[in-house]
Amino acid sequence: MDIIQTVAEMQHVTYKQQHHTIGFVPTMGYLHEGHTALIDRARQESDIVIVSIFVNPLQFGPNEDFDRYPRDEQRDIEIAQQHGVDYLFMPTVEEMYNDEPTVQVTVKNRTNVLCGKSRPGHFDGVATVLVKLFHISNATYAYFGLKDAQQVAVVDGLINDFHFTTKIVGVPTVREKDGLAKSSRNVYLSANERQEATQLYTALTNAQQDMIDGEKNPVIIREKIKRYIEMYTSAKIDYVEILTYPALQPIETIDRTVIIAVAVYFSQARLIDNLIVSEKGFIPEQLF
Amino acid sequence: MDIIQTVAEMQHVTYKQQHHTIGFVPTMGYLHEGHTALIDRARQESDIVIVSIFVNPLQFGPNEDFDRYPRDEQRDIEIAQQHGVDYLFMPTVEEMYNDEPTVQVTVKNRTNVLCGKSRPGHFDGVATVLVKLFHISNATYAYFGLKDAQQVAVVDGLINDFHFTTKIVGVPTVREKDGLAKSSRNVYLSANERQEATQLYTALTNAQQDMIDGEKNPVIIREKIKRYIEMYTSAKIDYVEILTYPALQPIETIDRTVIIAVAVYFSQARLIDNLIVSEKGFIPEQLF
Repeated sequence: MDIIQTVAEMQHVTYKQQHHTIGFVPTMGYLHEGHTALIDRARQESDIVIVSIFVNPLQFGPNEDFDRYPRDEQRDIEIAQQHGVDYLFMPTVEEMYNDEPTVQVTVKNRTNVLCGKSRPGHFDGVATVLVKLFHISNATYAYFGLKDAQQVAVVDGLINDFHFTTKIVGVPTVREKDGLAKSSRNVYLSANERQEATQLYTALTNAQQDMIDGEKNPVIIREKIKRYIEMYTSAKIDYVEILTYPALQPIETIDRTVIIAVAVYFSQARLIDNLIVSEKGFIPEQLF
Repeated sequence: MDIIQTVAEMQHVTYKQQHHTIGFVPTMGYLHEGHTALIDRARQESDIVIVSIFVNPLQFGPNEDFDRYPRDEQRDIEIAQQHGVDYLFMPTVEEMYNDEPTVQVTVKNRTNVLCGKSRPGHFDGVATVLVKLFHISNATYAYFGLKDAQQVAVVDGLINDFHFTTKIVGVPTVREKDGLAKSSRNVYLSANERQEATQLYTALTNAQQDMIDGEKNPVIIREKIKRYIEMYTSAKIDYVEILTYPALQPIETIDRTVIIAVAVYFSQARLIDNLIVSEKGFIPEQLF
């Protein structure tokens, strides 16, 4: 595995590799099983696997935790090596951002819902760094976890609107055996909350079953999810939403693929989870 | 020459041609000698020449003349053919812009000076369409006329900030024998104004001579240009500016490459012209 720190060197490599398929996994490091699922998938599908580790200041708001974001480069390097990564791209902030940038990407749609509502500018930062990283990596495929389904929807828009030839691959959420979506934030749950947290996924799969049984009214499904979470957990609900996917538009009757998304606050952790399902309640094989 | 109207077909062609150098000339059509100079240069330097003709609605302000912008597709096709273009890309607006775009490019620097000052949003539209066209054309080289030097500076920023592998080529302004920069707007000049208009270039080359003679104070040079234009023409000055190039920053002492730029109003036409010169007054061989 080669560790690369400059844009020029990374572009030199990807230029030489342009006849191969390149699978690219952008990360902010502190790699966990969510990331390695993406890396393993890339390893299966591409000749060359590039992983980037870059904590992108542009996607953090002024009150967010850019400085406190967890970093462990040595461990990340070992994990990447174990999972067969060919190139690990670890640039500095100075290497990625010029003092006075001329341009940035502005995300005008798919942002004012779900988690994006409370993070103005976040997806502008995500989209800007991804335009840069897609060019630097010359990615044939770019891998993203569907746990951050809104991010995947924004990237889908970015790729389509800007006619990138890079193909987006949305990888299903990695879960604990009891269904809880894996997250570095799960460690902040008390033992009791950890038990309760499994109910989020149960609420989502119950909703999926309702759709399989023919329910087409998103209001009814949403209210059932809310009542279920309120009954079986001590969490405070941030949102429960059913929106078209990937356009993230409200819908009156479920007649196409939708995302059922929840976000809740436990005492020390905010958890999110979602299911993306076809109008009949099935998990779509092909999202994009 | 192939005429191509869809993004998918154009990307299919450029994917097949990825082992060749591709010279790309983006235009809004109504081709004149400024454009053919770019095409001829691309023809000399690249295996494949792609010209796009697309009147980009996104770069016109609400009070600007998108609907009245001159179009003559038949003549453009003939000119492109005569100059050895391989592919003429002529998409519709619907083909280029989806109803609800998720993203666009925002230009944050190099815009609030010169002509950009009076055209808010103009360069956002230019940069957005160019990101799309660079991906669609898979350009090795992209050719732009230095008559629109601010546009070239914005494109230079776009290419650098987003790490495009496309190389920008700034082609010197094409001039009439008497020095007047070629422009479709020159036809709006009266016979007398047409004579006077040659003084713009004379004012610029006088300024260049002052720099060669050692003048380093931009205020002195600017005032001389203004007085010259006021003395020898009936035009009303919009601006005379000396800025660093391509960063387009104000400067107190000329110690690097600068643009000397003028814009004036004649009775029926606004004309612009510029010279880009090194600190010692010479025309730089390599700008970017």
